[in-house]
Amino acid sequence: MNNNLVLIKNYQKEITILGQNLALLEWDQLTYMPPMGVNSRSEQISLLSNLIHKKMISNELFTSLTALKKQKLSNKDGLMVKKLYKEVSKSRKLPEKYIKELSKTTSLAYTAWELARKEKRFKKFQPYLEKIIKLKKQECNYINEPGHEYNSLLDQYEEGMTVEKLKSVFSKLKKDLINLLNKIKDSSNYKKQKNSMLKQHFSIEKQRNICEDVIKRMGLLNGFSRLDLTTHPFSQKIGIDDVRMATNFRESPLFSFESTMHEAGHALYEFNLPKEDAYNILGNAPSLGIHESQSIFWENMIGKQKYFWQFYFPLFKKEFNLKGDFNQWFKEVNYVKPGLVRIESDELTYCLHIILRFELELGLIEGSIKVLDLPNLWNKKMREFLGVTPNNDVNGVLQDVHWSGGSFGYFPTYAIGTIYSSQLYKQLLKERPFVEEKIRKGNFREIILWLDKNIYKPGNKLTAEEIIKKTCGDGLDPKVFIDYLTKKYSEIYEI
Amino acid sequence: MNNNLVLIKNYQKEITILGQNLALLEWDQLTYMPPMGVNSRSEQISLLSNLIHKKMISNELFTSLTALKKQKLSNKDGLMVKKLYKEVSKSRKLPEKYIKELSKTTSLAYTAWELARKEKRFKKFQPYLEKIIKLKKQECNYINEPGHEYNSLLDQYEEGMTVEKLKSVFSKLKKDLINLLNKIKDSSNYKKQKNSMLKQHFSIEKQRNICEDVIKRMGLLNGFSRLDLTTHPFSQKIGIDDVRMATNFRESPLFSFESTMHEAGHALYEFNLPKEDAYNILGNAPSLGIHESQSIFWENMIGKQKYFWQFYFPLFKKEFNLKGDFNQWFKEVNYVKPGLVRIESDELTYCLHIILRFELELGLIEGSIKVLDLPNLWNKKMREFLGVTPNNDVNGVLQDVHWSGGSFGYFPTYAIGTIYSSQLYKQLLKERPFVEEKIRKGNFREIILWLDKNIYKPGNKLTAEEIIKKTCGDGLDPKVFIDYLTKKYSEIYEI
Repeated sequence: MNNNLVLIKNYQKEITILGQNLALLEWDQLTYMPPMGVNSRSEQISLLSNLIHKKMISNELFTSLTALKKQKLSNKDGLMVKKLYKEVSKSRKLPEKYIKELSKTTSLAYTAWELARKEKRFKKFQPYLEKIIKLKKQECNYINEPGHEYNSLLDQYEEGMTVEKLKSVFSKLKKDLINLLNKIKDSSNYKKQKNSMLKQHFSIEKQRNICEDVIKRMGLLNGFSRLDLTTHPFSQKIGIDDVRMATNFRESPLFSFESTMHEAGHALYEFNLPKEDAYNILGNAPSLGIHESQSIFWENMIGKQKYFWQFYFPLFKKEFNLKGDFNQWFKEVNYVKPGLVRIESDELTYCLHIILRFELELGLIEGSIKVLDLPNLWNKKMREFLGVTPNNDVNGVLQDVHWSGGSFGYFPTYAIGTIYSSQLYKQLLKERPFVEEKIRKGNFREIILWLDKNIYKPGNKLTAEEIIKKTCGDGLDPKVFIDYLTKKYSEIYEI
Repeated sequence: MNNNLVLIKNYQKEITILGQNLALLEWDQLTYMPPMGVNSRSEQISLLSNLIHKKMISNELFTSLTALKKQKLSNKDGLMVKKLYKEVSKSRKLPEKYIKELSKTTSLAYTAWELARKEKRFKKFQPYLEKIIKLKKQECNYINEPGHEYNSLLDQYEEGMTVEKLKSVFSKLKKDLINLLNKIKDSSNYKKQKNSMLKQHFSIEKQRNICEDVIKRMGLLNGFSRLDLTTHPFSQKIGIDDVRMATNFRESPLFSFESTMHEAGHALYEFNLPKEDAYNILGNAPSLGIHESQSIFWENMIGKQKYFWQFYFPLFKKEFNLKGDFNQWFKEVNYVKPGLVRIESDELTYCLHIILRFELELGLIEGSIKVLDLPNLWNKKMREFLGVTPNNDVNGVLQDVHWSGGSFGYFPTYAIGTIYSSQLYKQLLKERPFVEEKIRKGNFREIILWLDKNIYKPGNKLTAEEIIKKTCGDGLDPKVFIDYLTKKYSEIYEI
């Protein structure tokens, strides 16, 4: 066998396994680690990240890849080499010194962000964010994707996505969402909406049982998965047959139930990515957007629809001894409530939170927005988009952790995933019209088989947009999402 | 600063942190890992072990150490270099090919051992054990410690310990233990002994509460430790301020309670090893024997004595709603019951199980015992030492996992630790006579301070025997242990 091919396969396997190790360190930190373990944990994470990075940029790997690029290979190996070469080249573009400085800065910025939240003063975070923006601009120069400088950041999370495409998609989406939101707000149903059923008592033990139930129905069995308790819900793949979810229990059972379905959507995707490519780049998910399409598919497209609740409402009613009927419950599950906090937002307003962040990120990277002005701009846009104003920066510009970690270009993938999820559900119904009858019976097998064929199986052999195009006929299409929302909320709000 | 010194400190830090990673992989496998994660887990463990081994035998490290050995260094650095040089040299003596073969063989042997247990047929394990013995003899040749060839195996777990010393200690111990056991067996108390209190019902939830209670009293707070559920109790240090224990609940609450105290003894030692040396060899425990002295100190010397139960019996009685009085309970806790299984044995017979294994290991390495004859020899010795005969190999020669993993020279450390623990308790009482009054109140603070000063603080700067000599006046002394047992059991059995 081709020696270079053997070498690059070994590298990928080692990088993958070290990545699994890293995943376990993170999972443990968020679930069972005793609090004082945190200092050792950051040493452990930093050493492993460093080992992985060193392998990615090693000259040995790069030399082999460069040689392989000139050789005749099988289609699959050729594709693997092409994808890996791109990844490796990108990593090699960032100087060691830059990576160390970014890592040091984000570590300090995280602490400053926490302090700023505690004191409710953006100023405490401001100088760190300024430094991060400066570094991210440098990064754009190093990576140097074609077109807008922000493309270099976007491409790390969503291969092939550009500012040009996003601007067009998001401007349409923003206009239509605000229109729909305003129509809803004008409706009499909206004006009289109020929770009665979701205000009742939901024991945590029973919340847990019902979360375990939905995970199993989604095909995530105990043999290869588990559900734990954490502060912010997440999912993590620890090994080929080891995917884990974690959730948190609040007063409303919807928080744990929806977040569990969300994380289970991610976990199902990770578990079903092609196992024959588990140790090479073709076995990865191609983008964050498509990953998010899987979580939001289950959380929203399945978990907020009528047929689904026709199955689960009787269980909820019995388990929690609920007073009230199906119609009221279904409305409460789907209430539109423009609010300050992204992660508490509803299906309609969610993408407006994202677009707001995208516009600010773009301005920061372009230099048209100063960090100093962020809190005011944030609040102004909140009023414009959602008609609400943060009473302090904790509920405003300081609410998300992403910027303190230097994750610019990440937020848009949430909206991309949301749009994709609506396209997928539409196509699923077209190909398998009987599936809603199955959902009504709590049977998701057909759905999973369909996702497996169309989304899971391709792995990283296609880009996210290619997968969606191949499956649904079109690429990213906000119209499908808007149509879905319009139809759904027209019924609920009788508009 | 001396460049070589910086280099070897960096190496030790990386090796320590990778070791912590490995510890987490193992902890997770034994507690929360979904069962199907096992294949990825062995890949992960094998990659990390390999990385650690490569660092240990790297020429860069060895060259620096060799240079440093010739330089004038501070006492502490000099000691660190000396200890590390010894470790590194030993690792370098084992050829890569040998390590791979041992690893492959033990992996197969473990599966064969499990199968042999399932089918109750030693023959299924025999060829693998033969191969392991052959490899271990090779290892003795590679390591080549002075004196008996088995010393090369012993020294890996118990630095400075030799067959010559052990033979003399164990022959005395064996004679005295068998004598004492026979006297007990002849007593009328022994003939009428029977569990009445330990046959009552002990809910697992309450067992867990009482285990959590004793851990806290031993100073292991939630901030840096935790107790989980597993099959075979163990403890694991995951980070500088992160030590974890795991136990299992059986019908008798003594299993979880004693094993938790045992593991907490290990954890307390690991947690209190000198933190300034956390990332170099001087921060390690100097031997397995002294580590075991810490677990057995808590399990037996504290956890089986009268004053201790004067505190805990009322709690047990109340929690579990027990019928019966203190005297009966104390007797049941301390019943001598010669049995087939080491890990279920009492304080008196435990070391006889160990000496049996030591004698067989020695014969196997010397070549005077053939693997083929092991089951018969095992059973013969069980009759001689304890007066019981295994009804099958699962309760006999196949009961321990150690040999399948190639851990020869390991068993003796259990007996060494047991003897040390009695010497430590004797000395503690001499220096702090009031301590028993504190134990009676469930207050272990004085004990921990005394252990900290004498055992924890020295770390690896002294050998185990040096620490014991410095603390107690003498090195390994079986007489103290025999005296302790004789006094204790004379009262209980009125002999």
